[in-house]
Amino acid sequence: MQPYPKHYCGVFGVFGHPKAAELTYYGLFALQHRGQESAGIVTSDGRQFHVHKGMGLVPQVFDAAALQRLPGHMAIGHTRYSTTGSSHFRNAQPLTVDCARGQIAVAHNGNLTNAARLREQLESAGSIFQTTVDSEIVLHLLAQPGPNGSANSLVHAIRRLEGAFSLLIMTETELIAVRDPHGFRPLALGRVDGAWVVSSETCAFDLIHAEFERDIAPGEILILRDGGLISLQAFPEHQRRAFCVFEYVYFARPDSVLEGRNVHLARVEMGRQLAREHPVEADLVIPVPDSGNSAALGYSLESGIPFEMAFVRNHYVGRSFLQPSQLIRDFNVRVKLNLIRDLVRGKRVVVVDDSIVRGTTCKARVNTLKEAGAREVHVRVSCPPHMHPCVYGIDFPDRSKLMAANHSLDEIREYLKADSLAYLSLEGMVKAVGRARDSLCLACYNGEYPVSYDPALDKQIMERRRAHR
Amino acid sequence: MQPYPKHYCGVFGVFGHPKAAELTYYGLFALQHRGQESAGIVTSDGRQFHVHKGMGLVPQVFDAAALQRLPGHMAIGHTRYSTTGSSHFRNAQPLTVDCARGQIAVAHNGNLTNAARLREQLESAGSIFQTTVDSEIVLHLLAQPGPNGSANSLVHAIRRLEGAFSLLIMTETELIAVRDPHGFRPLALGRVDGAWVVSSETCAFDLIHAEFERDIAPGEILILRDGGLISLQAFPEHQRRAFCVFEYVYFARPDSVLEGRNVHLARVEMGRQLAREHPVEADLVIPVPDSGNSAALGYSLESGIPFEMAFVRNHYVGRSFLQPSQLIRDFNVRVKLNLIRDLVRGKRVVVVDDSIVRGTTCKARVNTLKEAGAREVHVRVSCPPHMHPCVYGIDFPDRSKLMAANHSLDEIREYLKADSLAYLSLEGMVKAVGRARDSLCLACYNGEYPVSYDPALDKQIMERRRAHR
Amino acid sequence: MQPYPKHYCGVFGVFGHPKAAELTYYGLFALQHRGQESAGIVTSDGRQFHVHKGMGLVPQVFDAAALQRLPGHMAIGHTRYSTTGSSHFRNAQPLTVDCARGQIAVAHNGNLTNAARLREQLESAGSIFQTTVDSEIVLHLLAQPGPNGSANSLVHAIRRLEGAFSLLIMTETELIAVRDPHGFRPLALGRVDGAWVVSSETCAFDLIHAEFERDIAPGEILILRDGGLISLQAFPEHQRRAFCVFEYVYFARPDSVLEGRNVHLARVEMGRQLAREHPVEADLVIPVPDSGNSAALGYSLESGIPFEMAFVRNHYVGRSFLQPSQLIRDFNVRVKLNLIRDLVRGKRVVVVDDSIVRGTTCKARVNTLKEAGAREVHVRVSCPPHMHPCVYGIDFPDRSKLMAANHSLDEIREYLKADSLAYLSLEGMVKAVGRARDSLCLACYNGEYPVSYDPALDKQIMERRRAHR
Amino acid sequence: MQPYPKHYCGVFGVFGHPKAAELTYYGLFALQHRGQESAGIVTSDGRQFHVHKGMGLVPQVFDAAALQRLPGHMAIGHTRYSTTGSSHFRNAQPLTVDCARGQIAVAHNGNLTNAARLREQLESAGSIFQTTVDSEIVLHLLAQPGPNGSANSLVHAIRRLEGAFSLLIMTETELIAVRDPHGFRPLALGRVDGAWVVSSETCAFDLIHAEFERDIAPGEILILRDGGLISLQAFPEHQRRAFCVFEYVYFARPDSVLEGRNVHLARVEMGRQLAREHPVEADLVIPVPDSGNSAALGYSLESGIPFEMAFVRNHYVGRSFLQPSQLIRDFNVRVKLNLIRDLVRGKRVVVVDDSIVRGTTCKARVNTLKEAGAREVHVRVSCPPHMHPCVYGIDFPDRSKLMAANHSLDEIREYLKADSLAYLSLEGMVKAVGRARDSLCLACYNGEYPVSYDPALDKQIMERRRAHR
Ligand SMILES: Nc1ncnc2c1ncn2[C@@H]1O[C@H](COP(=O)(O)OP(=O)(O)O)[C@@H](O)[C@H]1O
Ligand SMILES: Nc1ncnc2c1ncn2[C@@H]1O[C@H](COP(=O)(O)OP(=O)(O)O)[C@@H](O)[C@H]1O
Ligand SMILES: Nc1ncnc2c1ncn2[C@@H]1O[C@H](COP(=O)(O)OP(=O)(O)O)[C@@H](O)[C@H]1O
Ligand SMILES: Nc1ncnc2c1ncn2[C@@H]1O[C@H](COP(=O)(O)OP(=O)(O)O)[C@@H](O)[C@H]1O
Ligand code: SF4
Ligand code: SF4
Ligand code: SF4
Ligand code: SF4
Ligand SMILES: [Mg+2]
Ligand SMILES: [Mg+2]
Ligand SMILES: [Mg+2]
Ligand SMILES: [Mg+2]
Repeated sequence: MQPYPKHYCGVFGVFGHPKAAELTYYGLFALQHRGQESAGIVTSDGRQFHVHKGMGLVPQVFDAAALQRLPGHMAIGHTRYSTTGSSHFRNAQPLTVDCARGQIAVAHNGNLTNAARLREQLESAGSIFQTTVDSEIVLHLLAQPGPNGSANSLVHAIRRLEGAFSLLIMTETELIAVRDPHGFRPLALGRVDGAWVVSSETCAFDLIHAEFERDIAPGEILILRDGGLISLQAFPEHQRRAFCVFEYVYFARPDSVLEGRNVHLARVEMGRQLAREHPVEADLVIPVPDSGNSAALGYSLESGIPFEMAFVRNHYVGRSFLQPSQLIRDFNVRVKLNLIRDLVRGKRVVVVDDSIVRGTTCKARVNTLKEAGAREVHVRVSCPPHMHPCVYGIDFPDRSKLMAANHSLDEIREYLKADSLAYLSLEGMVKAVGRARDSLCLACYNGEYPVSYDPALDKQIMERRRAHR
Repeated sequence: MQPYPKHYCGVFGVFGHPKAAELTYYGLFALQHRGQESAGIVTSDGRQFHVHKGMGLVPQVFDAAALQRLPGHMAIGHTRYSTTGSSHFRNAQPLTVDCARGQIAVAHNGNLTNAARLREQLESAGSIFQTTVDSEIVLHLLAQPGPNGSANSLVHAIRRLEGAFSLLIMTETELIAVRDPHGFRPLALGRVDGAWVVSSETCAFDLIHAEFERDIAPGEILILRDGGLISLQAFPEHQRRAFCVFEYVYFARPDSVLEGRNVHLARVEMGRQLAREHPVEADLVIPVPDSGNSAALGYSLESGIPFEMAFVRNHYVGRSFLQPSQLIRDFNVRVKLNLIRDLVRGKRVVVVDDSIVRGTTCKARVNTLKEAGAREVHVRVSCPPHMHPCVYGIDFPDRSKLMAANHSLDEIREYLKADSLAYLSLEGMVKAVGRARDSLCLACYNGEYPVSYDPALDKQIMERRRAHR
Repeated sequence: MQPYPKHYCGVFGVFGHPKAAELTYYGLFALQHRGQESAGIVTSDGRQFHVHKGMGLVPQVFDAAALQRLPGHMAIGHTRYSTTGSSHFRNAQPLTVDCARGQIAVAHNGNLTNAARLREQLESAGSIFQTTVDSEIVLHLLAQPGPNGSANSLVHAIRRLEGAFSLLIMTETELIAVRDPHGFRPLALGRVDGAWVVSSETCAFDLIHAEFERDIAPGEILILRDGGLISLQAFPEHQRRAFCVFEYVYFARPDSVLEGRNVHLARVEMGRQLAREHPVEADLVIPVPDSGNSAALGYSLESGIPFEMAFVRNHYVGRSFLQPSQLIRDFNVRVKLNLIRDLVRGKRVVVVDDSIVRGTTCKARVNTLKEAGAREVHVRVSCPPHMHPCVYGIDFPDRSKLMAANHSLDEIREYLKADSLAYLSLEGMVKAVGRARDSLCLACYNGEYPVSYDPALDKQIMERRRAHR
Repeated sequence: MQPYPKHYCGVFGVFGHPKAAELTYYGLFALQHRGQESAGIVTSDGRQFHVHKGMGLVPQVFDAAALQRLPGHMAIGHTRYSTTGSSHFRNAQPLTVDCARGQIAVAHNGNLTNAARLREQLESAGSIFQTTVDSEIVLHLLAQPGPNGSANSLVHAIRRLEGAFSLLIMTETELIAVRDPHGFRPLALGRVDGAWVVSSETCAFDLIHAEFERDIAPGEILILRDGGLISLQAFPEHQRRAFCVFEYVYFARPDSVLEGRNVHLARVEMGRQLAREHPVEADLVIPVPDSGNSAALGYSLESGIPFEMAFVRNHYVGRSFLQPSQLIRDFNVRVKLNLIRDLVRGKRVVVVDDSIVRGTTCKARVNTLKEAGAREVHVRVSCPPHMHPCVYGIDFPDRSKLMAANHSLDEIREYLKADSLAYLSLEGMVKAVGRARDSLCLACYNGEYPVSYDPALDKQIMERRRAHR
């Protein structure tokens, strides 16, 4: 058993639409940024499941013929990016199984913090595992014979899960949306043509003309079935909320609305706040597109320094599988953005990006600006320094490679060869998002993990298993 | 849950060879006739499994690069043909899982007659199923926590299986070969370069210069591990033997030796016996190639009527995906064999084939011969009429489509428009094989099933499950 | 013979670099926007050509293995988009042939206005044609036995071409760059690591760290060979210049510098000029990304109305093969850009785009804005109305489908349901580009074609040929 | 320019059938043995050509969708195997071009002995070449402006060709079948459903229920057009006939009838004659399947020694792309045929094969027989020793690698480790074929080339061209 790989994901579901698969396809397309490695859709025609999954981007995995082989009024879909090597086809989601309950499919966004422990318990009771994704654990739990009725055993199974999980579960006749009690990852409910849709982000609703209805509440189990909706609470109400602030900072699309707050507007506000906290005299504000666009605009509006799109983002880089070339210095950085050198020659430039993780990319950008003749380069980052790993489904590099975890502000500035460097404060970020501080997860910034996770325990479990064999 | 699909299969394993994957690849290539739909190999490097599977013929699934990604001294391989629609990639074997024991892989040839019952028991105890192949049942049983030691729980698991099974099981460090107590399907042990090899048929040994050692005995569990071989008997010794006679008649390759008897020689003897039982005055004996070749030769030798290869078998038809054409009458039959018309014009011809199942193909052949000017056409079949379905891993059509189950000899002859028609007797066939009658399965001919199988029960189980949901 | 299809193209060449193919690959990647349908590279190792071509985007056509099979110090590459149905593999460029001169390869950007006539002449003298691209005509002309020396016959061949052509020609030992006497399409010379590079646009130089040297002059034939550079003038010097103004308006990348003028800056200036010519009271200026970005920024800077990126461009749409869905209204438009509705609700909005061709897309955008609650929508277009087709290598729809060719300004505004509509003037556009009016082609705006082209003649030639047969 | 590669080919054409492409597909499938590397079909719908070509076997290149994109009542198809490295897609046939005559397609079986000279002449007059197949030369010649009418210039063009050529030429409205004046390669005319079909071999007629009509005569140009058939003679009648005897010996299918003589029967007669010329005392006659089957049967019938199919031909080897393994000795030989060892143990065996070219394969077979315990092995070859290369379209290895060209009979026997070795005499072979000696080409046996070919001249031409460049 390998440690559970971290992964980004997007989930989308449809209940009650004759073209459920097609809608799901569009939904996944709009959620493509949440996972580019594999995609899958499972439909139910009321009696039977139909599955299509594959490696690659959504339009590569699905064509018209594939969609036609997915009949049914219900569907769940998943798009996934795994950050470890284990990007096998067998790990593509949604996962589907047959069990005493009938057929079940699961699509999962997030990260279970007790995956290793649950798996050990299940295996020692005789369970077999065919993948390394935590959805399979969910399926095993769901398949356990419940004490009494079906809903009870569902609640019972969900209660055993810890960590971050926005889940879509499908049976032959029901679609179930579940969100963990802290509400780490988003999950929204919408309506279109009398059908229900569920999506990781609201931008998917826009594409299909669906109306946003409400967010799935933290800890809620929402069962969509023919008779109507049933909402259960699996967890005690008083759990601390912990919505991932990084969804606002970087991960979600700017055109999505997360728990009532538009992402772009939150980012513009981060940029304004950044300008207030860390002003500088300069001629131009330029974003690192596209994740820096909104904050740079905010910085420009607040500071009055003109906004200039000096970096041009290559349209084709999203999917290119270019080999990193030894031939070209900084190739990976250059291929994505090219600088319009005429714009910055002799200018004092403020560069705004959302975050600095390893620092190498940022260093290459500063260098490019200097080579093009920029007089001064001031780096402004629209969130605080990243000091800690995420264990709830966003992959950052090891602590050892997190720039800010290992170096002082001044060392980083020096490394970047920037004339100045400043980060948005934690308070500033929270204020810009506009939500109560204790309703957000801020763990990767301040180390306060809302749900505990003990990597040492995980390792120990896995070693114990090896020894047994 | 769908009824378990019937399937043909070939299995091959290697223990203790540095090029285990490559040897397995050749082995599977030699067993290709036992399954053309998917192929797979799993190796173990002592710590970890490496898997490659795919749809298609062995050389389509594996190339040099794929083999290089399969390191290790142990390997098991599988080649499969499913006769139902469920020819999905997920059903490709060997199946591999992770469980409390560590990693396990299974490759299976045969058909479990108690699959539905076992699955129901497992599911009601909480097991989930991701495929519709019976190997997954074997894996679940193996993963159950055993009462005491590992070997005991292995025996315990195997004992729960009923029906026909020649199994290869691999753990990180052991290769286990199992044959059901009746010995329905073949499984042979060989040696090459100090390594052990296990194969469905001995023809695979010839290709890799391996020496045949012995057959795995019915009911034997043979564990190949670093210390040496361990042979266990899982079942009481007195079980009736029931080797599938149809392996000799048609299914196995003529160059294989099954339980000491060469297939070609058995077929030649069937042909001789057929000539003795059903002589006829004629000018030529012609086989329906290739399955009729040996028996036709025997018929010719015994009768003295000259042998002629009047049907030419197209070299490329093995795997062509030609659309059955409406344009060309009898296309599917013609594309495989073409008649040399100059040979049969004005002649009295004896046509020898191994079996008549539906009758349509045979009718088309007779017709072709008549159209080419044959004066008389005498059909001789080198086994008795097929009256019953097989439930041990060979797929015949439904009873309702079995020609001989629904028509008298004379009706069949009439339908074929043949001048005469005769089948080898059951006694003649058994004699030609040269083994005791009660050591063979003859169920598809005489309806005496060595292991009972109740399709009604299976259906009932499945309906009960539906109702539960 | 079908009419010559119109096509967009990008060309790139390398002379004197050990990794010529790899550099060309990067160059083509940077020119991908000039053609997304097929890509190809031909290298010469001094004795022999090596070719790789394919349908699709550059990274789809080439992988590391393909590049390794392209040795040599010289290379030419081509990326192509054909606007007619004839997007066959056989038409993929560069084209290579064997002739009395040896091997020749040609890559062409532009459109020959006398293609049909030249082809007729060649065919009636016995030439055969295997493609429908005009490069093949160039090859035939180059292969004609010249009166005397090689350079002379080259000049002689080039002189027979009329229309727009930026050509790269490669022999076993020479790379030849040619630009038509009017200089319709760009072609620039650069240096990297002591090697020469030639590219349709300078943005390709940036990616590979090459230094821009100079533009190939209109009418120039530049021969790169081991001894050094030879520059010939094939045409009388006094020909009118006619650089395509639409390269500045839309087609070229904003980070390219065309004949000394950066595209983005030209577009910003167009936006400023547009604001001067057509001011309006409003709350926001929003671009239609990405082609409207620069002009919108200019409009905002000049007018003082805040810039807002209310439309979010989907990162994955560049090459998706989504089926236009009947299910979703305006799908093709929505899938590319999504509106952040919170931004425009209740606002007076100026929308800036580069051009309106058919009008349907613009209408859908206005509609989206209105549906989201925009109070007023003012459409501003950063070039004059398109009234005429282009015959020099940019594909516009038929005159009958060109919105501005068939409707008054007011009718268009009405159709778009916009509150106001205004186009940049011809003078304003020329001024913004900053070049003399008579050095530009403006034909699609004002109908003054620098090189005459008679479609009736072409049709007549083709009909004559049909009749002959 | 590279030397023209040698290649095997099959051609098939249809005139006047609504499903011309589908019939051609079946025809090519039946001719697959004449070329397994690429396949192509061109149809004409009376106005326009439709082309589909690809690398691989016929069923790999064409699926139902591809056939549906090939409408029209006329079609020509080609299947090809190139023996040199130049197996590029661009060389796949039929070749199609546009020229003054309209569209022309050509499919060619054979080898032009004056290809290099013709190409030099054409190139020096300005022709360009895009492939290295000689069909392109034919197209250039056909496209030359004729002196007067169309038929005349066709005859004029054909007359310039030398060597072996069975050609199918298609224009928008005509199908033209041409055979060289010596008639090296077969070409037959048939009828089905009122349509005309033309095929390299008659076995293709059988598959589609077509009736054989007659052979195309040597030197005949047969024009199939709407008005009816026109037969021209391009060459003086008195040319010596030279039908390739090797088509009977090995190349053609046994179920084909070539110029009135069934191939299988000719081979049986070769085997009988071989038994008469070289009798031996033995227990068994075994063929090397499948090319040795017929002759072995003949040998058995004549000698009275029983026929035994001791070598089993693997059904899947036709298309397998197995890597020759270092691991397994004689892998390439073993993978094709496996020996039933029980049959030959202690026996005196006569092995019959059609020919010995390099000798390595034969040596491996003898060795296998000896290892299996055969007491004596007598090799009998059903044609004379191959001493000379073929320049008419059959690829043998260089003279230096032709076993018989470099070694005495006794040396060969010694090398094979056979107990005896004998070849059929030239006279015996001719007699078995049953045709006049001077109507056959026997050049690879006796060195008497019916059409002269000077490889030195070819080389000289190519070197001259290199020098020119
Ligand atoms: N690879 C690229 N990287 C950056 N900008 C590009 C690229 N290709 C094209 N462009 C620019 O983007 C514009 C086209 O993008 P956009 O407006 O989004 O698409 P559309 O062609 O539908 O108008 C062009 O003006 C061009 O200048
Ligand atoms: N499609 C076909 N169907 C039947 N026979 C064929 C076919 N193609 C070729 N043959 C015959 O088979 C012989 C070649 O097969 P074989 O001897 O097995 O292979 P090899 O080319 O290695 O000698 C040829 O003599 C030819 O007559
Ligand atoms: N499909 C999409 N359409 C529009 N914006 C997207 C899309 N996917 C992601 N984004 C936004 O773009 C940003 C990431 O783009 P970019 O900064 O160019 O790449 P990177 O991930 O390298 O930082 C994210 O902030 C996200 O909000
Ligand atoms: N790879 C193989 N090589 C040689 N013989 C084979 C192979 N596979 C199957 N056979 C034999 O060929 C026979 C099946 O071939 P054939 O009769 O041509 O096909 P069908 O399955 O249509 O009857 C079987 O009897 C089997 O013994
Ligand atoms: S640790 Fe950071 S990235 Fe992870 S959930 Fe919390 S805020 Fe989001
Ligand atoms: S029923 Fe027939 S085919 Fe099945 S195992 Fe028994 S003998 Fe074999
Ligand atoms: S007509 Fe328009 S698009 Fe064409 S070259 Fe001239 S300016 Fe460019
Ligand atoms: S040389 Fe031999 S193979 Fe070639 S055409 Fe003549 S007989 Fe046939
Ligand atoms: Mg970014
Ligand atoms: Mg058969
Ligand atoms: Mg645009
Ligand atoms: Mg042979």
